[in-house]
Amino acid sequence: ETSVTLYGIIDTGIGYNQIKQGGDKATRFGMINGTQSGNRWGLKGVEDLGNGLHAVFQLESGFDSSNGYSAQGNGTHNRLFGRQATIGLAGDSWGQLDFGRQTNIASKYLGGVIDPFSNGFGQANLGASFSSANTMRLDNLVLYQTPNFSGFQFGIGYTFNANGSQDWKLDGQSDTNTRGFTTGLRYANGPISAALTYDRYDNDANFDSAINEWNLGVGYDFEVAKVSLGFGQTRNGLMQVQAPGAGVSFSTDDSIGVLENIDGLKVNSYLVGVSAPIGNGKILASWQMADATNSGNLGWDAKKQQVYSLGYTYNLSKRTNLYAIGSYGKNMYFADDVKSTAIGVGIRHMF
Amino acid sequence: ETSVTLYGIIDTGIGYNQIKQGGDKATRFGMINGTQSGNRWGLKGVEDLGNGLHAVFQLESGFDSSNGYSAQGNGTHNRLFGRQATIGLAGDSWGQLDFGRQTNIASKYLGGVIDPFSNGFGQANLGASFSSANTMRLDNLVLYQTPNFSGFQFGIGYTFNANGSQDWKLDGQSDTNTRGFTTGLRYANGPISAALTYDRYDNDANFDSAINEWNLGVGYDFEVAKVSLGFGQTRNGLMQVQAPGAGVSFSTDDSIGVLENIDGLKVNSYLVGVSAPIGNGKILASWQMADATNSGNLGWDAKKQQVYSLGYTYNLSKRTNLYAIGSYGKNMYFADDVKSTAIGVGIRHMF
Amino acid sequence: ETSVTLYGIIDTGIGYNQIKQGGDKATRFGMINGTQSGNRWGLKGVEDLGNGLHAVFQLESGFDSSNGYSAQGNGTHNRLFGRQATIGLAGDSWGQLDFGRQTNIASKYLGGVIDPFSNGFGQANLGASFSSANTMRLDNLVLYQTPNFSGFQFGIGYTFNANGSQDWKLDGQSDTNTRGFTTGLRYANGPISAALTYDRYDNDANFDSAINEWNLGVGYDFEVAKVSLGFGQTRNGLMQVQAPGAGVSFSTDDSIGVLENIDGLKVNSYLVGVSAPIGNGKILASWQMADATNSGNLGWDAKKQQVYSLGYTYNLSKRTNLYAIGSYGKNMYFADDVKSTAIGVGIRHMF
Repeated sequence: ETSVTLYGIIDTGIGYNQIKQGGDKATRFGMINGTQSGNRWGLKGVEDLGNGLHAVFQLESGFDSSNGYSAQGNGTHNRLFGRQATIGLAGDSWGQLDFGRQTNIASKYLGGVIDPFSNGFGQANLGASFSSANTMRLDNLVLYQTPNFSGFQFGIGYTFNANGSQDWKLDGQSDTNTRGFTTGLRYANGPISAALTYDRYDNDANFDSAINEWNLGVGYDFEVAKVSLGFGQTRNGLMQVQAPGAGVSFSTDDSIGVLENIDGLKVNSYLVGVSAPIGNGKILASWQMADATNSGNLGWDAKKQQVYSLGYTYNLSKRTNLYAIGSYGKNMYFADDVKSTAIGVGIRHMF
Repeated sequence: ETSVTLYGIIDTGIGYNQIKQGGDKATRFGMINGTQSGNRWGLKGVEDLGNGLHAVFQLESGFDSSNGYSAQGNGTHNRLFGRQATIGLAGDSWGQLDFGRQTNIASKYLGGVIDPFSNGFGQANLGASFSSANTMRLDNLVLYQTPNFSGFQFGIGYTFNANGSQDWKLDGQSDTNTRGFTTGLRYANGPISAALTYDRYDNDANFDSAINEWNLGVGYDFEVAKVSLGFGQTRNGLMQVQAPGAGVSFSTDDSIGVLENIDGLKVNSYLVGVSAPIGNGKILASWQMADATNSGNLGWDAKKQQVYSLGYTYNLSKRTNLYAIGSYGKNMYFADDVKSTAIGVGIRHMF
Repeated sequence: ETSVTLYGIIDTGIGYNQIKQGGDKATRFGMINGTQSGNRWGLKGVEDLGNGLHAVFQLESGFDSSNGYSAQGNGTHNRLFGRQATIGLAGDSWGQLDFGRQTNIASKYLGGVIDPFSNGFGQANLGASFSSANTMRLDNLVLYQTPNFSGFQFGIGYTFNANGSQDWKLDGQSDTNTRGFTTGLRYANGPISAALTYDRYDNDANFDSAINEWNLGVGYDFEVAKVSLGFGQTRNGLMQVQAPGAGVSFSTDDSIGVLENIDGLKVNSYLVGVSAPIGNGKILASWQMADATNSGNLGWDAKKQQVYSLGYTYNLSKRTNLYAIGSYGKNMYFADDVKSTAIGVGIRHMF
């Protein structure tokens, strides 16, 4: 029995980004990385403890395959295993309980149902509109997930501090740890799939109400094509936010921030997705809209963000594929007339 | 023959810390990590060179399992293999000679004899009172250890610079490298074990005399319980210092510093330890005292630091266990009335 | 079939450096690391895609074996895989196409022909005089290399930005990405070997002309000894520059910089190398000269830099060897009377 498995994904390509607002324009042309799937290497293992009980762990480190940078390891703190660092116990009958850093339930459950781009391909992925499903990772997370019951799986997690180390709380002062929870239900049976998720975080005592988001998605696989629909509502802020221009994955940091409190902001999110197998490949397409029905403290008059995306993946083997992506977004980050165009081609290899 | 072994430990739990001084109080509640054993992944190997000679190496990287941070990789310099980075030659007849970063002899030899907590469990471990045995790692270390001779093993090491890179010495100026040596003897035979260690470091020309510490420990395993006693003396500073509140291992940095010169400081350290196997588990208990008989340049009137600790480990398998820890310390870091309480439970998995 | 291979090199020793200029002197004595070969651990793999096509990848991380530091991971950005991060496709008939960070063609092709020190041993290696062959790594590189045709191999690469992340180009402003290309031809057949390389980079619009360097090398293996000759010309700057005192590899950062534009600088470089097998070992010797025939904007009156080096390697096995190195350089970095002396001994193990 091997006690540890070494695995990873490396994904590199060539791409182009353009951002325009009014007469201003910024462009990038060059090497892109982690576009379809974030670059990673990791260690994972399962130990059989008997009586249907298992010890499980996973350590996953992200990197930039165009220049070798650590993907979550720049700046003051260096996340060596910035994608995942968990240990847990799993029982055949009762499910799995994990401790440590990993993605929230919305990022785990929603994308598989509604996103043809499977949480990848930069601004094309559902995260552009559904911020809680934007591969948001939570530190200090205790996460419980049931086994699959007749196609249903339920998960719920609580984080002692969503981002970083556990802070001291001084007597008489407020707690600076961002507590929060993530929960959801998913269903998959034959051609039908569905997911419902909810996240709530309280990261600052200066805001009246916590950031929260719920999302619902359904999908049906007609074999000739899979069609999906998603709807969600975000209130009082955004969770994992992409900057305009995240288009395809250049190695600069495209994230605006995590758990941005924006008091009073109300966003309704929509997605229609289609994917269709064609020979050794697959066509991917989606339309997304994030409609800020109330700008709240955003700071400007919010416009409807819309993203149109089209992609193609072609399998060279089970572990290696080529891809092409094109995506066009307007009113990005709710800003009037900000247009983001992204195109790219690349290769992804899994080991 | 495999040329490299991939291994590691992941240790995460839930814990609580409280520090009080007079009317002030600070608390932490949340995820703890590396409490029983520091989280690590590593590579090691042995090559048979013939004639009883072997080439050996070990590269060990520490991390925080609650948020994925590198454990020794934050700040200006990033220690990728911050726990150990050594290459050496080993001879069946003459022992082993290693080059690179690793723990000093006191950290290797003393804990196994006197510490029921095996250099783990935060403030419960012997390092709270015996600063040279507090898992102190030395850079640029040449370390020689004999084979086991009838239960005896002797080790001696010299570091060209205890912490960091080798500095240039400018002609006419003093050498800013912290030179030092670490040495010790240990004995284990049936129920009896003993260790004697000595460390000396000269890290700053502004102090009259070098930091030094010697420690002596003995243990006897009565089978129903193992009992141990330790005594040591530290002069002119402290070696690897824990901050008050190191209690259980939250992900914030609990260390005060390494090789703190405190001219004239005299500390006598004491430990009484007991561990007793109970079914699949083990009860651990210790009392420690660090008595600063002369405050020297400490800056305040030193009080007797005492730490009382009680723990329990329960084996789910040879590689996985659960644990619980409670520890109470007073006059921490010799400061009047500073009380540190720590409790925690967790799971540890070795791969 | 294994999908991933874990490998590495660890190289540590004891050394001494001295730099003198006029009456000033600086010395270092202590642990050296990565002297013969840079310390590294890595992951690599090949997948057979059928029809003579393969997917290949390599991720290589550098470290300092004396203190565990990441070798390319200090400072603002942390290169986890700072030595190499590539994915590519390889065809039996047409060669290999790689994407990502790796060394340029000059560093790949020239050293094997002319450098007895094989791009290692600090200032002894050819990089002290031939800056494009000084293990220069390029980010965002697309590199194509032919298969071996009757002893010939040709390579050519283009980088979208030689060092770091892809920058945005703002409309109406200049592109801040350092574009460039690297190309070369090598030949090896029986005792004869030869290499011709050319590199050109444009890293700043403030200079009239781009940094460029071409090098030519030939070698002949007389069996009793291999003799080699190298000549090259560098114009308008230096590529991968070593600081004076790089002598043997202490853990401090010895690099001055990458792609230093020095307008008008003209350097002619020369190398004569000899290596001779002796029993289980090999004697290595070289003389190098970098003659700045025009100082350009260097800032001082350039002197002829010369380096004399002598080394010895002794194999304990195929994977482990000992080494000794001595090197003396004068007018280092073209500065009048700067003398650099380096001696060291060490052990290197490959896994």
